[in-house]
Parts: sequence; C-alpha cells; structure tokens
Amino acid sequence: MSKRVLYLIQQAGVLMLMPRSHNKQLGTTFDTVASHSHHVAVITYCISRMEGLSHENAMKALTMATFHDLAEARTGDLDFVAKHYGKPDEERAVKDQFTGFDFGGDLLKLLEDYEERSSLEAKCAKDADSLEQLYQEWVLMWQGNKLAHEMKDSNPQKWWWSQFVKDDMAIDKEKLLGKR
Amino acid sequence: MSKRVLYLIQQAGVLMLMPRSHNKQLGTTFDTVASHSHHVAVITYCISRMEGLSHENAMKALTMATFHDLAEARTGDLDFVAKHYGKPDEERAVKDQFTGFDFGGDLLKLLEDYEERSSLEAKCAKDADSLEQLYQEWVLMWQGNKLAHEMKDSNPQKWWWSQFVKDDMAIDKEKLLGKR
Amino acid sequence: MSKRVLYLIQQAGVLMLMPRSHNKQLGTTFDTVASHSHHVAVITYCISRMEGLSHENAMKALTMATFHDLAEARTGDLDFVAKHYGKPDEERAVKDQFTGFDFGGDLLKLLEDYEERSSLEAKCAKDADSLEQLYQEWVLMWQGNKLAHEMKDSNPQKWWWSQFVKDDMAIDKEKLLGKR
Repeated sequence: MSKRVLYLIQQAGVLMLMPRSHNKQLGTTFDTVASHSHHVAVITYCISRMEGLSHENAMKALTMATFHDLAEARTGDLDFVAKHYGKPDEERAVKDQFTGFDFGGDLLKLLEDYEERSSLEAKCAKDADSLEQLYQEWVLMWQGNKLAHEMKDSNPQKWWWSQFVKDDMAIDKEKLLGKR
Repeated sequence: MSKRVLYLIQQAGVLMLMPRSHNKQLGTTFDTVASHSHHVAVITYCISRMEGLSHENAMKALTMATFHDLAEARTGDLDFVAKHYGKPDEERAVKDQFTGFDFGGDLLKLLEDYEERSSLEAKCAKDADSLEQLYQEWVLMWQGNKLAHEMKDSNPQKWWWSQFVKDDMAIDKEKLLGKR
Repeated sequence: MSKRVLYLIQQAGVLMLMPRSHNKQLGTTFDTVASHSHHVAVITYCISRMEGLSHENAMKALTMATFHDLAEARTGDLDFVAKHYGKPDEERAVKDQFTGFDFGGDLLKLLEDYEERSSLEAKCAKDADSLEQLYQEWVLMWQGNKLAHEMKDSNPQKWWWSQFVKDDMAIDKEKLLGKR
C-alpha cells in the first residue's frame, strides 16, 4: 500500500481536531471541519435527490462533499474575514493530497468538478455547504447566540466584520438560490 | 418537500453534538459521532479501492459509512461496556429515520446491506469503522494517554472493564482481519 | 479491601466524564451525570425535610439520590428520545456494581426501594430528580437558550422530538406532582 494513502487517512483524522474558525466571530460554535463535512455530505445527498438526481449520482455528489474540505488539513480553515487577507494555494494542497497513489486521480477529478461547479452534483454539494453554514447559525441562534442572529437575520453592518460580510457566500441568499 | 427530510438533516446535525461515549473510559477523546462518521467514510473509500472495488462501488461503500451511525441520534451512542447492558432497537430507529419520503428506500437498502455484511462494500465499511476506532486509540496513545495504550496493546485485563473487552470487535485483531 | 469497592469508586469517577446526553437536543447544557447526581442529592435532602422526614431519614433519601444514577457508568445515559429505542438492563448493572463486597447489600436495598417508590424517601428522591431536570432547563433558558424555553414552557410539539416529549417524566408537571 502506498504510504500516501495513510497520509490521506491521517489528514482526514486531523480535521476532527480542527474547530471551525468562525468560532472566533461567534464564540459558541461546536463544529469541527470533520463534523461539518459529514453534515454537508448528508445534506448534499438529500438536495441531490430532491433535484432529481439518481441514487448513483447523488452518491457521487455525497463523495464530493466528503472530500471538499480535506485540503484544509493542509491550508487551515480560513473564516470569511481571513479570506480577505490571503488566498491559500488550495490547488497545491489538493494535488499534494491526492497524487502518488493509484485511485487518487478519481478523487482529484471529483474535486476539480466541485471547484468548477459545472455539474449538477457540484452545484448540489456547494449549496449543501452553504446551507450547512446557515443551519449552524440557525442552531446557534436558537441556543441563544445573538451574534448568530445578527449575522443571519438582521443587521451585520453593526459589527466590525460588516465590511467582510457582503462578500460572504453563505449569507447571500440570492447567490445561494442561484439567482446570479 | 417532506418534513421527514428536514428531520433527517436535523438528526445528522445532532451527531455533531454527541461526543463519542468511549470518552468516559479514556477521558481525552475528541471525536463526535459526526466526525467519527466522516473519518470512517474516508477510510471506507480508501479500503474499498485497495480491495479492488471500482470508483463507483467505493462511493457506494462511502455512502453506507456516512449513514451507518445516523440511528445514534435516536438510540444514543453506547460504548463497549454499555453494550453489555442493553441492545437498542436500532432497526426501529433506522426505519423511523428513513421512511416517509421517496428516496428513503434507497438509503434503507444500503443500511440493510451494511447490517448483513454480505457485500464487499459492507465489509469494507465495517472494517473502516473498526480501524477508525483503533486509529483513535493510537492517536490518544501518542498524545500520552496511557489508558489508550493499555486498551490497545498490552493488558486490558488489569482494568475494571476487562470483563467487557474480550467481546469488543475493535480490539480483536483476528476478528478484524477476517480470520473468524 | 475487596477490589469491587475500588471498581465502584472508579465507576463513580466515570460519571464525571459523562456530559448528560440531553445536550444533543439542547446544545448548551453543562451538566454531567456526576454533577446532576450531586445536585439531586442536595435537593433530595431539602425536599425530605420539608416533607417532614427526620434528619436520619432525609440522609437515607440523600444516599439513595447519590447512588441513583451510578448504573449509568455501565448502561450509558439515555435521553428521552433514546429511551424510546431501548431499555438497558439497569437491574443487572446495579447487581454487577453492588455485589461482591460486604456493605453492597445495604446499598442494593436502598436502590430497590428507590425503584419501587414505595417509601416517602424514594418519592422525595424521584421528585428531586425531576426537579433538577426542570432546574437545568430553567437555567439554560435564562442563559438565553430558546430550545430550553420551547421544551419547558411553550411548544415542544414544533420540534422533531415532539413524538417523544409527551412521555417525558420531567416535563409532565402532573406526573411530577403526583396527580397520576
């Protein structure tokens, strides 16, 4: 067995030790990159079927979702503020993770598809990613977190991060619903 | 959209709030049922390919792994000690989760396959589940946890849980390697 | 000293590592099985005295409360949803914990009394158990948790767990007050 398969498994394990970095804005989040990825995978399957994809194609979309944040074991998880100050070389991270063993190419192809958002599978996976973020903010809001409420529903312009929020995919409902 | 699809997504979200219950034996674990499921999914894909399954069939096994512990949102997560004092009605939990919406049947079929362990996909997913447990104990051991070391490598018979360990799938290397 | 006394002490220690599983519904709970048991013990003494029991009998009730959830170190802690999918063999767990050392019999007798709820001591301890649960939900509510508010006071029927709530002892005020 190629050692690089072990590296991949180890890096997936690392995601379990990565609290998602939006915690620094919201303070009471409980998700890790791993648990986020799992939830995105489940949501992706459901959306895919509701969009009319077959069981087989929905499983393809779910696989995409499972691996979509694996590069963060190398690049780190940048929240919507940090994204304004740097663009990690995700492409290189993905390449470093998925080359050097024979079935890596199949996963690489899935991830390229995800990045391009050309297939319906990729679109469902990306929508699920954004919806999972909304879900977290909704749950936090119900748990009593008023910052989550501000971010999601009312007026993010009040906060220091206002300048960053306008570019945030997850809260832009029109972008999310595919109107642009 | 059926409300039951929303319930399914909500219950997958619940797994993010469930620290795995082996923590009560080991004390320094960091996995949740959600992050465990994600890691199992990644490992399942890798094992499946190494066992010669196609990309398509490996994605099927990965999907199985993604959903294999979803019932725990209802039944709770029982560690190897608790399993000696009760067997939750997992079958009913699975049925309650995956009926009442049209694509539930496809997922139900996957989970039945997983329970029966007849297909190679199911066997790979179950091996990944056990290996993920070993992986956690190995990581905890390297983090300095001596209980994890005892449990995994040397002499669990010294501990109060000794009477339970002999039946534990994850530490039975012969069972794991398919010798019985 | 019998080794089994050490096991008992170790298992009481395990309760400190068990966050109560209602956290998976409420998200911001902070109680462990141990801290819950401690609180129940204090409340039990107070209720017992207010019900007219003597100091000696109130201490008997308090002792009952202190040990009432010890079996959960073996069976696990099932929340009100999980209880619908399985009934752990608590009787066996209690027997495994309290036999094999000489004073175990005295504790066993207390726990049997607790299960039967025939004595006033047992009734006070059970009421304290339910009140402690209400107390937690009240604290969470004051901490801003809207789910705790929904669960306790207004409309649990809105949630996916509605089908389980109706059987929950702790929120059934009439059951709690002994009207049925």
